[in-house]
Amino acid sequence: MRGRRPLPTVATIVSGRVGLAVARRLASSLVQVDRAAASPVAVLKLARPPANSLSLEFMAEVRLSLAELEADPEVCGVVLSSSNPKIFSAGLDLKELVDPDPVRLHAFWTEMQTLCQSLFLTPLATVAAIHGHSPAGGCVLALTCDARVMREGGPRIGLNESALGLNAPWWICNLMERAIGTVKSEQMLQRGSLVDGTEAAKLGLVCSSAATSDEVDALVAKHMKEMLAVPNSARQAVKAQRRQALGDAMKSGTAEGSDWFVSRVTSPEVQGPIQAYVASLKK
Amino acid sequence: MRGRRPLPTVATIVSGRVGLAVARRLASSLVQVDRAAASPVAVLKLARPPANSLSLEFMAEVRLSLAELEADPEVCGVVLSSSNPKIFSAGLDLKELVDPDPVRLHAFWTEMQTLCQSLFLTPLATVAAIHGHSPAGGCVLALTCDARVMREGGPRIGLNESALGLNAPWWICNLMERAIGTVKSEQMLQRGSLVDGTEAAKLGLVCSSAATSDEVDALVAKHMKEMLAVPNSARQAVKAQRRQALGDAMKSGTAEGSDWFVSRVTSPEVQGPIQAYVASLKK
Amino acid sequence: MRGRRPLPTVATIVSGRVGLAVARRLASSLVQVDRAAASPVAVLKLARPPANSLSLEFMAEVRLSLAELEADPEVCGVVLSSSNPKIFSAGLDLKELVDPDPVRLHAFWTEMQTLCQSLFLTPLATVAAIHGHSPAGGCVLALTCDARVMREGGPRIGLNESALGLNAPWWICNLMERAIGTVKSEQMLQRGSLVDGTEAAKLGLVCSSAATSDEVDALVAKHMKEMLAVPNSARQAVKAQRRQALGDAMKSGTAEGSDWFVSRVTSPEVQGPIQAYVASLKK
Repeated sequence: MRGRRPLPTVATIVSGRVGLAVARRLASSLVQVDRAAASPVAVLKLARPPANSLSLEFMAEVRLSLAELEADPEVCGVVLSSSNPKIFSAGLDLKELVDPDPVRLHAFWTEMQTLCQSLFLTPLATVAAIHGHSPAGGCVLALTCDARVMREGGPRIGLNESALGLNAPWWICNLMERAIGTVKSEQMLQRGSLVDGTEAAKLGLVCSSAATSDEVDALVAKHMKEMLAVPNSARQAVKAQRRQALGDAMKSGTAEGSDWFVSRVTSPEVQGPIQAYVASLKK
Repeated sequence: MRGRRPLPTVATIVSGRVGLAVARRLASSLVQVDRAAASPVAVLKLARPPANSLSLEFMAEVRLSLAELEADPEVCGVVLSSSNPKIFSAGLDLKELVDPDPVRLHAFWTEMQTLCQSLFLTPLATVAAIHGHSPAGGCVLALTCDARVMREGGPRIGLNESALGLNAPWWICNLMERAIGTVKSEQMLQRGSLVDGTEAAKLGLVCSSAATSDEVDALVAKHMKEMLAVPNSARQAVKAQRRQALGDAMKSGTAEGSDWFVSRVTSPEVQGPIQAYVASLKK
Repeated sequence: MRGRRPLPTVATIVSGRVGLAVARRLASSLVQVDRAAASPVAVLKLARPPANSLSLEFMAEVRLSLAELEADPEVCGVVLSSSNPKIFSAGLDLKELVDPDPVRLHAFWTEMQTLCQSLFLTPLATVAAIHGHSPAGGCVLALTCDARVMREGGPRIGLNESALGLNAPWWICNLMERAIGTVKSEQMLQRGSLVDGTEAAKLGLVCSSAATSDEVDALVAKHMKEMLAVPNSARQAVKAQRRQALGDAMKSGTAEGSDWFVSRVTSPEVQGPIQAYVASLKK
């Protein structure tokens, strides 16, 4: 039966015309959704080995999984986590950026923007459980959530795009600025800084940190419990009000943002460092 | 003599057409104004038992008392305090919200907005001395001041509207955001968080806290002294400049804000929780 | 030879039509530029005795020195420092403000604005090494840099204009707000607060502080090293993006700002205190 109907193309995924049931067929192994019976909280685990790097199809599936949870009247909150205890997400899949097809690259960045808009504006309560590394795109996903808890010790978080020769677009920088303020975000962004959980909590980049994974999970549950203790309609109204201005600006800048991204990434000054970096990884 | 001239109606109070001398007749026992001889600082004590809950007439009197102090050339600063050592203000008078007359409700919220605009934009130096609980509307009054000092230990402060099923309008949220930043204010607003003085000082929700009431008063006096050490015209010019954008937006949104408030509060989804809450208080 | 060609007038300096080589003749002893061989970092030392107070010609020379460094392809970063270990800069030269010629005063404030715009928007990485006092205009120069390190113990920093009866224009206040937030900056600005290095670091007014001058210099070098570890084009793109909105507003408000400054400073209510203050200094 599966073969009878053509799989949706990237273009139809991105434009949102794909039914959820169909979309789940695409890559359902890349996202793991756990639901305890009778719990209003789902756990959405990023599960794309080895490092949860963000490809077009992976991001589309995350977004569609979120849409499924939003459509479920019993779900009020989502914990965004990773099936890999050492890596939350390594950020953009560099394969998407090396010698790219401009049409796919445009769809890729449109999906990144659309996913982040969906996460930022979802009426569900969201908490990122950051047990592992969370650089660049991984940090962006975490910043779209209502709260962030990070494990201390090993993993590092930050928007380190500039260290790779790229500059993060304005809305990603604004997501960091709303968490840690203007000057501190500007400084981290200029330097491509990565910090550990203790420092991230001190800066406000995450809400709290803990030494063990169990303690992280306990803090995540506490954040979620506090949010869900509030009547849903009021909590959602607060979230919508506080995020409307930035959310509207993000949405209205999507097309321009994808054009900018394609132009920037395909330029020699960005392709050079990326190709050199990927070559160094292969060695 | 008093009977000869009709008392002003709510509509004339709200529209500001009431002379101060007339208005003082209305409810002069609800606000206690203390002036030490030859001191440029007045203490305006909220004095509406049992909890300084904000009714239309009470707020009108606070505003008119403030206007009287502004008109006094010897007054440069006002300490906003409470005659009740355990409660700064319990917030909106729920009696105004239960099964309300829409016309009075509209005047009620217009007065709340106008009072807060007057406090936010007054050229007088203002310090809130928060000895007791200060939830919701009590926190709003405190946030309009130039500085806030809170007693540690018992009392709690915060914008807990969402916990009661309401969402605070944008300008109230912005007052909190300017004190504690975007993400922290969003989180407190989503959860309807109330915190004690120690935590409030750590967050920046109040400027400082102290263990005893005497120490609170000493810190309040220190804040006031520092402000009044600056030439009045310069201090006032700084305050006007820094508050102009938000103040203008607050003023231009007053009518729309009252329409929204009436529509929201009279809706079944808000009346239900409020009536249930008030019924539970009566038991 | 020098006499053959007329020195540029203030008007031509301010309008930027002066060649650098000519401008260097003006006052080359007021700025000391140190370049270690093969280092991408220059040290620009303010060197106008006794207190690096900002005169029209001094500010013009600082700006032209910066432009020279920007034009040098080997320079990527500038440390802004002082040849006086006890004073970074005392702020505006009060001689410019006492009984001023309105035309020169207009040029003076245009130069102050243009210098700050140049420092704020320079593609070079900038760190202020604040070994000595840095009130008012000294603090403004520091706030335009990408990072600030201050010596603990003696020196103080802040925007204390209001204490002298002036109010700092909006863009100076915004420079402070982006470092320490809305309410804290409003409070420091209202009171004309000056704080020491330890307190400044705690507030975020400087990025870090240290007990000795050597430690300050080591921290400055660390800040600079972190910034220059990032590819120049990416670091510059981040800086340009994060500063564009405020930078554009500063530039478009220059003429209006100078008109305002002349009107304010020549008013009796400002001339009175300034003349009294200068008279008190002479005693």
